[in-house]
Amino acid sequence: MQNFEIYNPTYFVFGRGTQSRAGELVRRFGGHKALIHYGGGSVVRSGLLAEIEKSLDAAGIPYVTLGGVKPNPRSGLVYEGIELCKREKVDFVLGVGGGSAIDSGKAIAAGAVYDGDFWDIWSGKVPYANALPHGCVLTLPATGTEGSNSAVVTNEQLLLKRGTRSDFNRPCFAILNPETTFTLPAWHTACGVADIMAHIIERYFTNTPDVDVSDRLCESVLQTVIKYGPVCLAEPDNYEARAAVMWAGTLAHNGQLGVGRQEDWASHALGHELSALYDSTHGATLSVIIPHWMRYTLPGHEMRMAEFAVRVWGCQMDFEHPERTALEGIDRLSVFWKSLGLPLTFAELGAKEEDIPELTRKCKCGADGTVGNFKKLAKPDVEAIFRACCEE
Amino acid sequence: MQNFEIYNPTYFVFGRGTQSRAGELVRRFGGHKALIHYGGGSVVRSGLLAEIEKSLDAAGIPYVTLGGVKPNPRSGLVYEGIELCKREKVDFVLGVGGGSAIDSGKAIAAGAVYDGDFWDIWSGKVPYANALPHGCVLTLPATGTEGSNSAVVTNEQLLLKRGTRSDFNRPCFAILNPETTFTLPAWHTACGVADIMAHIIERYFTNTPDVDVSDRLCESVLQTVIKYGPVCLAEPDNYEARAAVMWAGTLAHNGQLGVGRQEDWASHALGHELSALYDSTHGATLSVIIPHWMRYTLPGHEMRMAEFAVRVWGCQMDFEHPERTALEGIDRLSVFWKSLGLPLTFAELGAKEEDIPELTRKCKCGADGTVGNFKKLAKPDVEAIFRACCEE
Repeated sequence: MQNFEIYNPTYFVFGRGTQSRAGELVRRFGGHKALIHYGGGSVVRSGLLAEIEKSLDAAGIPYVTLGGVKPNPRSGLVYEGIELCKREKVDFVLGVGGGSAIDSGKAIAAGAVYDGDFWDIWSGKVPYANALPHGCVLTLPATGTEGSNSAVVTNEQLLLKRGTRSDFNRPCFAILNPETTFTLPAWHTACGVADIMAHIIERYFTNTPDVDVSDRLCESVLQTVIKYGPVCLAEPDNYEARAAVMWAGTLAHNGQLGVGRQEDWASHALGHELSALYDSTHGATLSVIIPHWMRYTLPGHEMRMAEFAVRVWGCQMDFEHPERTALEGIDRLSVFWKSLGLPLTFAELGAKEEDIPELTRKCKCGADGTVGNFKKLAKPDVEAIFRACCEE
Repeated sequence: MQNFEIYNPTYFVFGRGTQSRAGELVRRFGGHKALIHYGGGSVVRSGLLAEIEKSLDAAGIPYVTLGGVKPNPRSGLVYEGIELCKREKVDFVLGVGGGSAIDSGKAIAAGAVYDGDFWDIWSGKVPYANALPHGCVLTLPATGTEGSNSAVVTNEQLLLKRGTRSDFNRPCFAILNPETTFTLPAWHTACGVADIMAHIIERYFTNTPDVDVSDRLCESVLQTVIKYGPVCLAEPDNYEARAAVMWAGTLAHNGQLGVGRQEDWASHALGHELSALYDSTHGATLSVIIPHWMRYTLPGHEMRMAEFAVRVWGCQMDFEHPERTALEGIDRLSVFWKSLGLPLTFAELGAKEEDIPELTRKCKCGADGTVGNFKKLAKPDVEAIFRACCEE
């Protein structure tokens, strides 16, 4: 186990009706005037926004609102939010919605207390040194941003998607009511499940020895999502299934499943290129990449992948041929994602084989020219994985 | 799953050499002058105290020290610490040692900003409304206080042991270096393992349905402790084993394994009476009580206890006779604790059958006259469990 630090200061309020706590929590964490920041119509149509406004009214917290956040949140709206916060002397940002609304809110919170352009911080030009306190009401379990230190924004002028990692990105509180996810479309539910599982898989496959504590935790959260993900699709208003997936989404990405180990994150890097070129939903890029990444990285990692097959999927261990067990686990993962309606190939995603040279060229590698850690992938490896994604 | 709130704001710094971070962390969390509060000689002999002092010196944090904390920490030293903090204008308390030193430090932190008697807060007479910021350097994995909201102190005048639960009890930071546990005596290592497992078992056995996420997490942490506990005894300086048990101890009691469910805590209540009468080590009272509590509460809970046997201990499920599987799991737990040198009976603990009426009378029950939740135990149930503990 490697040395590690972990910090999860977010106050989580989970369960039915918890949106009514928003006002009290804004006040508890020092807010006197709030920006409520949200995305599209569903938050309005469902009545959630009105309930949150009512809660702030009841707590005596004045507020302004800014809607219109889009998936892969854009810098334009962030600038607008920052301007609004400064003009209206807002001292607390409340993001309401999925990862995009919450990430956009985090960027606004940072920009509102910075004199220059917030993109200086997001592009790494200046250190992330402060932010307004912020909280969130989550309606889409997927990115884990409700409990994480990261926030991703796309700069429309520069056509760049950039994330920051900082404790200033950690929400003061997060409200999670599984009921608000009943109306999620099947596609978003499935992509969320893939995203949650991917956050764990990126941590699980490590070469760091003796990380049993977090290995077992990773397997636990995967097992829960595998049990309840399909129930969410079959019975969208099954509270227990929605609750299990929602809480699993937070646990998957608040950092504790990766403590003491080197994480991988190659699949996310490859997936991001697919999102950038085709505007594909993040979770759907991961369901295409990960099984192919696993098959490609299998040689030399047979026992680790067999462990995944046995402990997560309940496969029988083939002690004579661990690689067979490993492959069975990968197949089980593919079949599972397929059963949720997720794509497994370039064709199903709408990606094109002829774009592979461009995808490969753009794929962001480290200073040593590779991406990932479980197996360090050079550009030819990246290309080979993209090519494998074109096969059935 | 029930509605829940969870809050874990402690900043954890885990690994080799991390005690050198103490000064920097005191500063980060607002300290200008610290009280270093510790127990007996081991912290001094090992050089740990000197290293912490050096770290505070390097960070420019002046400090005063107060040693002498005893197991089941006493109010007398707490009063002394409060007086010292007020006199010396200390604004940060750093507990160094096991649960006792850390809990005593928490009480000092509370008392130092309260005008009256800190026991007003510990006895519940006045609300717990403030505390100095505090942190800790843990040297004995067991109580989980390094990441928990509780702190237990014994009032020597009143002969009362009382705990508080409050977010003010949460340390700002916790430093955990597994190397500092290499020199722990086997008995304390074993009692720590039992305490850690008990914290999970008290949460695992619940009647709340649909708590799979935390069920799986509970089983994970138990499995890790079962794997590495014996290694800690066989190879006291095995870093990986000590690290796994140390981090498991934090996870077991920081609240997340119990989210969304009714917890039990009857075994702790019974065990506390044994500690009170015989000054027995906490973990050793739990190894006596829990297997007998399990056998007593088994009727009507066969499937839940079979689940424990199968998922935690790897027993084969007897689908025709789940109670046999359940009993096998309880036996496995008993054999495991026995193998660590822990007692399973009154005789092995040094408790006396003739004290059972007194133990039963004193055992603290709720307003309805019962203790525990998985099965509500009335006084005759409590007595029956104590009696069962007298048998081999």
